[in-house]
Amino acid sequence: MVDIATRVWNHKWKIDPIVRSLIDTDFYKLLMCQTVQRRHPDTRVTFSLINRTKDVPLARLVDEGELREQLDHIRSLSLSRGESTWMRGNTFYGKRQMFTPEFMDWFEALRLPPYYLERVGDQYELTFEGAWPEVMLWEIPALSVLMELRSRAVLHDMGRFEMQVLYARAMTKLWEKVKRLQKLDQLRIADFGTRRRHSFLWQDWAVQAMQEGLGTAFTGTSNCLIAKNRDLEAIGTNAHELPMVYAALADTDEGVRQAPYDVLADWHEEHEGNLRIILPDTYGTKGFLDDAPDWLAGWTGIRIDSGDPVKGAETAIDWWKDRGEDPRDKLVIFSDGLDVGVIEDLHSRFAGRVRVSFGWGTLLTNDFRGLVKDDALAPFSLVCKARAANGRPTVKLSDNPEKATGPAEEVERYRQIFEVGHQERREVLV
Amino acid sequence: MVDIATRVWNHKWKIDPIVRSLIDTDFYKLLMCQTVQRRHPDTRVTFSLINRTKDVPLARLVDEGELREQLDHIRSLSLSRGESTWMRGNTFYGKRQMFTPEFMDWFEALRLPPYYLERVGDQYELTFEGAWPEVMLWEIPALSVLMELRSRAVLHDMGRFEMQVLYARAMTKLWEKVKRLQKLDQLRIADFGTRRRHSFLWQDWAVQAMQEGLGTAFTGTSNCLIAKNRDLEAIGTNAHELPMVYAALADTDEGVRQAPYDVLADWHEEHEGNLRIILPDTYGTKGFLDDAPDWLAGWTGIRIDSGDPVKGAETAIDWWKDRGEDPRDKLVIFSDGLDVGVIEDLHSRFAGRVRVSFGWGTLLTNDFRGLVKDDALAPFSLVCKARAANGRPTVKLSDNPEKATGPAEEVERYRQIFEVGHQERREVLV
Repeated sequence: MVDIATRVWNHKWKIDPIVRSLIDTDFYKLLMCQTVQRRHPDTRVTFSLINRTKDVPLARLVDEGELREQLDHIRSLSLSRGESTWMRGNTFYGKRQMFTPEFMDWFEALRLPPYYLERVGDQYELTFEGAWPEVMLWEIPALSVLMELRSRAVLHDMGRFEMQVLYARAMTKLWEKVKRLQKLDQLRIADFGTRRRHSFLWQDWAVQAMQEGLGTAFTGTSNCLIAKNRDLEAIGTNAHELPMVYAALADTDEGVRQAPYDVLADWHEEHEGNLRIILPDTYGTKGFLDDAPDWLAGWTGIRIDSGDPVKGAETAIDWWKDRGEDPRDKLVIFSDGLDVGVIEDLHSRFAGRVRVSFGWGTLLTNDFRGLVKDDALAPFSLVCKARAANGRPTVKLSDNPEKATGPAEEVERYRQIFEVGHQERREVLV
Repeated sequence: MVDIATRVWNHKWKIDPIVRSLIDTDFYKLLMCQTVQRRHPDTRVTFSLINRTKDVPLARLVDEGELREQLDHIRSLSLSRGESTWMRGNTFYGKRQMFTPEFMDWFEALRLPPYYLERVGDQYELTFEGAWPEVMLWEIPALSVLMELRSRAVLHDMGRFEMQVLYARAMTKLWEKVKRLQKLDQLRIADFGTRRRHSFLWQDWAVQAMQEGLGTAFTGTSNCLIAKNRDLEAIGTNAHELPMVYAALADTDEGVRQAPYDVLADWHEEHEGNLRIILPDTYGTKGFLDDAPDWLAGWTGIRIDSGDPVKGAETAIDWWKDRGEDPRDKLVIFSDGLDVGVIEDLHSRFAGRVRVSFGWGTLLTNDFRGLVKDDALAPFSLVCKARAANGRPTVKLSDNPEKATGPAEEVERYRQIFEVGHQERREVLV
């Protein structure tokens, strides 16, 4: 029986919108946004989107008109009543009223600021400029729109059954991963795959498959809309944009050196418990930990987001021991380049030595590798980063020079300030 | 958006009926039924259902109450107006009014006769008795009900995503077969998988996948309801029950010997072209062809349904040559135990030498082998056959002694009448 209403509803859309909600974004974006909106409402920033995988010719695959329609649609979104109720009334990380009434009033009134789109060769240059708390909320929807438009472009000429079989294969592939994860004792793993997902519906499916397959070992999703719809925990803490912007705003080298600690000092005032997670790699993990104030060793844990994850975790364990902390009480969150094999390896190395948790991204929500001709659906490395703050360029070094961003001379200056020596290069797949 | 009407509609059924239409059956059943209804309306027959795969304990898997509900539901079915219109108005094998107004009037008034169900150990004994044209129509729905109840029993405790992944795997498996078949030049293949299908919906999916994947190489389906819904050709000619019943009704050994030819003489009067397909193996192909009247060599083709298919086709080719016919004008339909490997082999051996066609059954519509624990969804060999006609036992020998049916002494008598010598045993998988 055809459901006439649903068909009519679906067909009345001029477009099929990819992002349909302002909370179809990562939880940490909203958490950071609240901090930024309170402390730096007038800081001007520029974010821009970069495709690090040059052999995916986005501008040839994705029609500029369609991209503009999707981005315009996002600019038309505002927080719905139900979404606002959820953010105001829900418990996040065990805390009520995580989002203050002042922030919620601001968020309810928010519409995303303009975007600047230009085709350059086979790539798009997509830039956002304006007040930091507004511009920062473009990052995730901009990424997921481009990722999904690319998926749609590849799927466009496929037959109906060919397409169903494609999804059948992707489901099978994901389920086999879930079955392997079932074998890991005391596993704790969350979905961090919003930004580079194959599509919204696929992320939603992946989350539900993890829910059924892993039960309580699946701790939640970074995606607020899916967390709300599926009654899951929204997961996430903070990201590189905070130290990057804080450092860019600093007037002296000493101010730059101090910036990452200033970020966490602010965070310390606002959050406790499992939200006190150090992201140490913005300008090199080793130097950051060596120079860190003692109160940071009291934080709950650390997130390893670049470089060799084993080395990163060992560095953290040594540091905690140095500062008289018991690593077994500490949380290590791995979130870089994860797939099941890596998860199994890290789990077997560190379970029992520290509390281990995984934030699984692209290869959870976009592992279509090997499923179509020329691997045209393989995930690729698209990022949307803060490029400038109040007219000054931002810099990120991370523990992998392949992930460094910023003008070359500024990168070099930061390397000297943070005394970053040789860094091992690691291929960035996704 | 939940479609409330569909949900309410689906939940108002006391049961979820497996067979919802009297034309959810094989086309050849209806063709034969018309012949039988015209020529032998008062012949009394007994059909019974036998599970040849004893290690599938049907009575432990399938609740007797549920089985009765399904069978009772089938007895409540009558031909719908749209179904009748399709049978009356459609072109079958290029012919209008294949079904006469007299037959259609009878069919519109038909309700299936009672069934007799008894549990014996871990198996069910399911028997149908009455007028031949009525009882014969139980065969396909009885088989498909038991097959699908067994599938449901196995699926019952599965999680929702686990189940979706199961179907994802089955789809992938089937699609890989379709991709292999795409490589066969001039392929002609039809779905013959109604009787041992995993489920109705799965057969419907398989048919549509074949449609999309193979285009015109997919010539149709034996299932009338699916042919009607999907606007496909309904495919099929005649089956063993005709010679089996004709032979049982014969009063002398000579009458038994003559029965298979009498069947085809009657068929010759009624049908032409691609419906003139010899099914030669009821009492041994070799003897049947050796003693066949010359007019049979003028028929369009032959269906190979037991024994070594290569040997069967070579026998037919030699026979046609013997009788001065050009085998390249003749159609050979393979319909026994097919899967892609066998199809590829037969196609490469016989394409060009004869016109080749395939009737693909169980491993098209029920290849769930290897997909669940203990292979609990593997297809199994369930048959529903004529056991007696006017109180006399029926016999089938076929070209494989594993497929012989009938009381031992009668089988022996028939072997002598038809001078069947040594027969190669071939394992019956499905």
